[in-house]
Amino acid sequence: MSAQIPDIVKHRVSDKAKRTLDIVAKFVEEECIPADPVLGAQIGEGDARWDRHPPIVDELKAKAKALGLWNMFFPKGHYKESPGYSNLEYGLMAEWLGKSIVASEATNCAAPDTGNMEVLAKYGNEAQKAQWLKPLMDGEIRSAFLMTEPDVASSDATNIQLNMRREGDEWVLNGTVSVLSIRELNIKSLTRGQKWWSSGAGDPRCKIYVVMGKSDPNHKDPYKQQSVILVPANTKGITIHRMLSVYGYDDAPHGHGHISFNNVRVPASNMVLGEGRGFEIIQGRLGPGRIHHAMRSIGVAERALEWMLMRINDPKKTPFGKQLREHGVILEWVAKSRVEIDAARLIVLNAAVRMDDLGPKASLREIAQAKVLVPQTVLTVIDRAVQAFGAAGVSQDTPLASMWAQIRTLRFADGPDEVHLQQMGRNENKRGAEVTKKILAQKQKTEQLLKQKNVKLYQPGANIKAKL
Amino acid sequence: MSAQIPDIVKHRVSDKAKRTLDIVAKFVEEECIPADPVLGAQIGEGDARWDRHPPIVDELKAKAKALGLWNMFFPKGHYKESPGYSNLEYGLMAEWLGKSIVASEATNCAAPDTGNMEVLAKYGNEAQKAQWLKPLMDGEIRSAFLMTEPDVASSDATNIQLNMRREGDEWVLNGTVSVLSIRELNIKSLTRGQKWWSSGAGDPRCKIYVVMGKSDPNHKDPYKQQSVILVPANTKGITIHRMLSVYGYDDAPHGHGHISFNNVRVPASNMVLGEGRGFEIIQGRLGPGRIHHAMRSIGVAERALEWMLMRINDPKKTPFGKQLREHGVILEWVAKSRVEIDAARLIVLNAAVRMDDLGPKASLREIAQAKVLVPQTVLTVIDRAVQAFGAAGVSQDTPLASMWAQIRTLRFADGPDEVHLQQMGRNENKRGAEVTKKILAQKQKTEQLLKQKNVKLYQPGANIKAKL
Amino acid sequence: MSAQIPDIVKHRVSDKAKRTLDIVAKFVEEECIPADPVLGAQIGEGDARWDRHPPIVDELKAKAKALGLWNMFFPKGHYKESPGYSNLEYGLMAEWLGKSIVASEATNCAAPDTGNMEVLAKYGNEAQKAQWLKPLMDGEIRSAFLMTEPDVASSDATNIQLNMRREGDEWVLNGTVSVLSIRELNIKSLTRGQKWWSSGAGDPRCKIYVVMGKSDPNHKDPYKQQSVILVPANTKGITIHRMLSVYGYDDAPHGHGHISFNNVRVPASNMVLGEGRGFEIIQGRLGPGRIHHAMRSIGVAERALEWMLMRINDPKKTPFGKQLREHGVILEWVAKSRVEIDAARLIVLNAAVRMDDLGPKASLREIAQAKVLVPQTVLTVIDRAVQAFGAAGVSQDTPLASMWAQIRTLRFADGPDEVHLQQMGRNENKRGAEVTKKILAQKQKTEQLLKQKNVKLYQPGANIKAKL
Amino acid sequence: MSAQIPDIVKHRVSDKAKRTLDIVAKFVEEECIPADPVLGAQIGEGDARWDRHPPIVDELKAKAKALGLWNMFFPKGHYKESPGYSNLEYGLMAEWLGKSIVASEATNCAAPDTGNMEVLAKYGNEAQKAQWLKPLMDGEIRSAFLMTEPDVASSDATNIQLNMRREGDEWVLNGTVSVLSIRELNIKSLTRGQKWWSSGAGDPRCKIYVVMGKSDPNHKDPYKQQSVILVPANTKGITIHRMLSVYGYDDAPHGHGHISFNNVRVPASNMVLGEGRGFEIIQGRLGPGRIHHAMRSIGVAERALEWMLMRINDPKKTPFGKQLREHGVILEWVAKSRVEIDAARLIVLNAAVRMDDLGPKASLREIAQAKVLVPQTVLTVIDRAVQAFGAAGVSQDTPLASMWAQIRTLRFADGPDEVHLQQMGRNENKRGAEVTKKILAQKQKTEQLLKQKNVKLYQPGANIKAKL
Repeated sequence: MSAQIPDIVKHRVSDKAKRTLDIVAKFVEEECIPADPVLGAQIGEGDARWDRHPPIVDELKAKAKALGLWNMFFPKGHYKESPGYSNLEYGLMAEWLGKSIVASEATNCAAPDTGNMEVLAKYGNEAQKAQWLKPLMDGEIRSAFLMTEPDVASSDATNIQLNMRREGDEWVLNGTVSVLSIRELNIKSLTRGQKWWSSGAGDPRCKIYVVMGKSDPNHKDPYKQQSVILVPANTKGITIHRMLSVYGYDDAPHGHGHISFNNVRVPASNMVLGEGRGFEIIQGRLGPGRIHHAMRSIGVAERALEWMLMRINDPKKTPFGKQLREHGVILEWVAKSRVEIDAARLIVLNAAVRMDDLGPKASLREIAQAKVLVPQTVLTVIDRAVQAFGAAGVSQDTPLASMWAQIRTLRFADGPDEVHLQQMGRNENKRGAEVTKKILAQKQKTEQLLKQKNVKLYQPGANIKAKL
Repeated sequence: MSAQIPDIVKHRVSDKAKRTLDIVAKFVEEECIPADPVLGAQIGEGDARWDRHPPIVDELKAKAKALGLWNMFFPKGHYKESPGYSNLEYGLMAEWLGKSIVASEATNCAAPDTGNMEVLAKYGNEAQKAQWLKPLMDGEIRSAFLMTEPDVASSDATNIQLNMRREGDEWVLNGTVSVLSIRELNIKSLTRGQKWWSSGAGDPRCKIYVVMGKSDPNHKDPYKQQSVILVPANTKGITIHRMLSVYGYDDAPHGHGHISFNNVRVPASNMVLGEGRGFEIIQGRLGPGRIHHAMRSIGVAERALEWMLMRINDPKKTPFGKQLREHGVILEWVAKSRVEIDAARLIVLNAAVRMDDLGPKASLREIAQAKVLVPQTVLTVIDRAVQAFGAAGVSQDTPLASMWAQIRTLRFADGPDEVHLQQMGRNENKRGAEVTKKILAQKQKTEQLLKQKNVKLYQPGANIKAKL
Repeated sequence: MSAQIPDIVKHRVSDKAKRTLDIVAKFVEEECIPADPVLGAQIGEGDARWDRHPPIVDELKAKAKALGLWNMFFPKGHYKESPGYSNLEYGLMAEWLGKSIVASEATNCAAPDTGNMEVLAKYGNEAQKAQWLKPLMDGEIRSAFLMTEPDVASSDATNIQLNMRREGDEWVLNGTVSVLSIRELNIKSLTRGQKWWSSGAGDPRCKIYVVMGKSDPNHKDPYKQQSVILVPANTKGITIHRMLSVYGYDDAPHGHGHISFNNVRVPASNMVLGEGRGFEIIQGRLGPGRIHHAMRSIGVAERALEWMLMRINDPKKTPFGKQLREHGVILEWVAKSRVEIDAARLIVLNAAVRMDDLGPKASLREIAQAKVLVPQTVLTVIDRAVQAFGAAGVSQDTPLASMWAQIRTLRFADGPDEVHLQQMGRNENKRGAEVTKKILAQKQKTEQLLKQKNVKLYQPGANIKAKL
Repeated sequence: MSAQIPDIVKHRVSDKAKRTLDIVAKFVEEECIPADPVLGAQIGEGDARWDRHPPIVDELKAKAKALGLWNMFFPKGHYKESPGYSNLEYGLMAEWLGKSIVASEATNCAAPDTGNMEVLAKYGNEAQKAQWLKPLMDGEIRSAFLMTEPDVASSDATNIQLNMRREGDEWVLNGTVSVLSIRELNIKSLTRGQKWWSSGAGDPRCKIYVVMGKSDPNHKDPYKQQSVILVPANTKGITIHRMLSVYGYDDAPHGHGHISFNNVRVPASNMVLGEGRGFEIIQGRLGPGRIHHAMRSIGVAERALEWMLMRINDPKKTPFGKQLREHGVILEWVAKSRVEIDAARLIVLNAAVRMDDLGPKASLREIAQAKVLVPQTVLTVIDRAVQAFGAAGVSQDTPLASMWAQIRTLRFADGPDEVHLQQMGRNENKRGAEVTKKILAQKQKTEQLLKQKNVKLYQPGANIKAKL
């Protein structure tokens, strides 16, 4: 809550945002976290998990709206749709949202809708906004973002294969399952370009897909071959084959869809921004989204730490006559978790501040830092909490195991750590020539000074006599 | 297979064992691994998962028996039931068994039956052996080991609470769910001592529970308060409340049971070894079992590494124009995995050799080393493989995610790492006085030598003049 | 320089401080770093190293004064002696100072003088200020802080043994070398309380020792047994036995003294703040000092990274036909170093901001975080740079090896990491009861909701039939 | 000593070797370790350090010879010069030698002489053996191996530049300091090929250099351009410019020389094995030498652990009322050190056994594993000991700091870790195609089984209805 804002940013948070932050915190802790297991219970088991919408979500959405907690992710100054918070301010709120499964959706701040709404707000035309942005902003429908493909290394977006072919006033999309999948899934086709990890596609209220495909595979600029187009979920030719699981979790009803396109036809007017501008759109989409993920993850870490604190003070758990907190190594885990979480949070907030001041494009380095640092930190904290709990930590009796599974995916979602580290390394290395020049100039100046002062650097053994 | 036995132990593996090892390897790779998903498919979904026995298991058991692969875990020289392999030799075989889900059961070498069979063979009387050991060794029934309790820190076995009360010719067992669980599970009772993580209790063929309880809570020796008793699974008063999940996996039909005892009566003749000797039994039970877990885990790591190798050579996966193996950091992951697996394997095999030469009691240090080192190593290897795969690595399309979940539990099963590290640290520290004495004697000798040779240790600044 | 200030604090840095920061950066890069080896050359070799003051230092001090770079460490608002910078602003400057060996002294911002000046400014009386603070602030003399003792665990300051005895108008100090040291150093005495790691005591210009001793060993409050007293370096009875080395470096002429006190008499008026208030003084002394160390260390890391960048772009170094930067793992080292340095810097700056807003006492948590996080981070960065250089990295041809040695000491100077982590863990754990209460309330609310909505948590296997 | 031989190799150690091992252990602990500081004292300070031979070494050599401890490194079966120990047996002895600075030289088992003697024994002709091998084996002279050059990435030996030109019956060697060095050292010349890190060149008894140079820079096979030639240390044209330091240590009198060659002429008969066969020689030289380094390093780790044990049981060191060993985290350090050392030792011994059975060429993988794993493990153990000691740990009062410096160089000596990891990764990856084929065959078999058994893999969400 607002009293816990790191000192370094305290003065940049408006009084309004501080008030909202306190409301968010209270809403999450008192309404959302207790509702998370209810959500699970309402979804039920088996195939039913995919055709129900748990009523508790709508109840919470009504409450959130009444509290003024809605669409806070739209940064002020960047979107007219914004309720008026900076990226920094929303970042602080997102941390609390991340502590609960349902909170982000309850406040209409859930991925992938947030990114999709930003795409529509930023790049959509008026018709597209009226048809899709409006109901998304009102929380009436949900959306999915279809980019990743199983058949290629889609961490490199130029590899995307889903075929988009213009026919008159329509685009025809084809992306069907691959040879390998055929064997496994008994589906007949050889064309590539199927999509998977289409998160949210499982939800019965998911009405619109934002789809990235290849509209001009032969364009000489590999970054102009792609387009982004809007595809209603009920368009003929779309098949949802299955949902991917994450460790043992299916994440229903949201889910991570495996979807193919067989001559799927959409009006040409569904193209976003323009043919060949897909790369530009996904670049713009990912920046703030990564910050949102990162901030929510910080909240996950805080909650894991809270559970660990509960465990190590549990009077029933006294191995070898001492409570867990009295075993030396445990408090060190607590302390390290505290400092690592705090450092990771500052990295995210620094990126948020930079986005507020200079926009996402000028903040790529800072965003990438958050993208890489946060999930690893949070996984470490969760795993310590699991270890403190022992077997309960991996079971359904704590939220830790599902937290771990969820956060683990962030180390490759929107690009694996290694791709980002390579890019960050290359960027940092651009200073190579400049620092080399500086260091050589410093060495030269040292030589001049040594000469001028008539002293020599001591070199051990410099007076060893020739062994003649 | 036998050609890959580490050089350091090659000469201690008999020709018979080498031949068997080759058969095991072939059986696992060609029969068991392909059957693992079939097992899953035959178990099905929902409640049905807990009342079926997948027929593929029995087919594999028949094949294994025909190949002479049966009960190899009974070490030669220690058990007359042994097919004649040393702990070292079985360790090498167990590595292969660990690569498949079904292989251990198919060869009747699966936990917890192995440990329970050892208990019966070592401590059981003839009647107990005839009734339970015989069908277990024949693979006709399965068993569970009920020790861990949710209400106490059961990493310290003296905390065990399940109540055992002698009444005439019977023992009456009571261990029902706790206050906390009541709230969650709507079960009415306040007595402690319920059991959980009773692995294998879900299987419809699980007929016998080996149960650790407190038969004399007031005995002045805290290590004589416990007894181990045999309880048929169908005894009145036993309730299986649910199965615990592991990172979302329910591990059906095996499962990890949460079980309560309400006035469960068994004949006094079901007591193993004698009243108050429970601690002695579990001590004897855990040694070889930890080695088995550790060796199977090495096999898991090898399989994870194989999948990683497949991935990084996949011609379809070429981020930024290069195959994954060409990205510098990946081959380093491969190399580190190789050396870390090999080091961990040697630690396990060293413990096996010591058990062969001197018995489990003299090998506690070596066994503990394997217990601690192996799971952490294997988790690291699996997680690298997951990262190499990206999203596929956490999904049902690779075996990696479930491997990770399975191995993660070994960091606290049979005691958390930290307990073992403390114990190992204390043991190593027993040398403290002796090494101190040695070092002080060395220092004294140095002084004598300096005096004798008339030289002084150089001390920088020793000639700084008094600043008077 | 000012353009590189992290966005998150940019608006809290005054224009004046930004200008000064640019001057500091230029002064360090162009004057100080080239002078560092000259300093070494002027000190020379052998015993001479301890009785010379290298003239280059005074030349740089004159330049620094002329540039207005003097005593910047005195935080504005806290000391009337301050040139007017906040802790945050000085923190940014200290980072640059840390890149050079000589820069801190050249700007009169070097430890231990800074801490000693703060003690005198905060706790000294007017006479003490006139006699010692004045010449220290003018850079005419230097000082040492004598606390650590070899015979006790002085990370716990209550263990301090140096004996202070009141005799009339004087205090008599005794602290002579111990049994163990006698053997090694051939010094005759049994009293404890000698001092070591008295940094700066080697410098011929070190004129004053700030000494912590035990004035009332029997005081019932263990935190009131200590006093801090001013002892001129040339007082009779003081012996400098030697200088401690750090790895192979003697850090002449500064040095780390090993000093004994034999009936050392000082006027009672030399007592600082009052008898029994030693603990209070060192508590006050350590806060900002830790931040200074931490910020200078960040500068060390930045310089190590610059050298690494030079190396990996060196056209002469092409193992296996590729420059080092083209070897995949190297750019990952660069990237990780970048993000880890940036995170550590934010942790320090956050502590500085909090000190600016709320004072050092309210910032103990944040200061401790910086104390623990920074040295480990910096050591990791330096060690990567060493590895990139290979053998040159450990030699006199790069500044890396001496950097490593210097920073390594910060993991126990002013208390080892482990003590701080324990303290941090205990503090964080104070939330234990509160979070437990919160989580239990959340669980209770979940139960109510489940009942109210008439749904149950799914528990796998909950319908397993009794095995009767 | 022999009682501590790991069980896994116990039966491969002859009784003779066991007896010798006990003698080695006693000699090292009782004679050599106490003599190490005497060695330092006899070397003295300043330039004198490089022209003295400390008499204590010769006294110890006499004792060692009398005890039969001489040249144990020559493996039996491979060299007629061998005293009859296997690589495994010598490995166990080398561990003890590594605990002392002087022990290896005292038993004539010190690098680089061991490698040079192996080169001469294996590749030298009779005249070369008579002139150089004989006095080396008798411990009358010492030698250096000159390969590394400052101007190139010499981890890739094809980069070596020292020029060898045939003129009649002589080879003329030229390798003088580079542009960069000129600036720093005021030496005039532009030719490349100077040598550095010529370890042992500082010793006045170092009489012979084994030199690697480029005899045929235009040979089309890059591995046939190099030759190895014997150069007496007193040959005209050789200049020792200085000694390199290692974290502040100069390692006198041994030292790490920086040497140039200016028209250095040696008879053609000094060529070893033949022109163009230099690569072949260094390949053969490095294998066993890496094992020796690794085993000695294990001894270093054991000694560091002993010092740590002494420290944590020191009754004078009781921070916060408890001895260090009672602080939870410390015993974990001890335990982890124990298991990590033991694992690293097994990796080395496995390589030794393989060399014994199959020779060094067949053991490259195992040797590389030891080369990479051991130094990192040992550094971790030493650094924990340093941290347990606090400031004393980095000073001259413990052997820890110099141990750390010494072992740190092993992470790049004979090639940096990263080069070895790349090579190991590539080798391991050769299995890529084979394991891919296997896994695909397993998948195919799974499909057949699924079809045959008429079951399907469960895919969550597979029954989601088309959203039409």
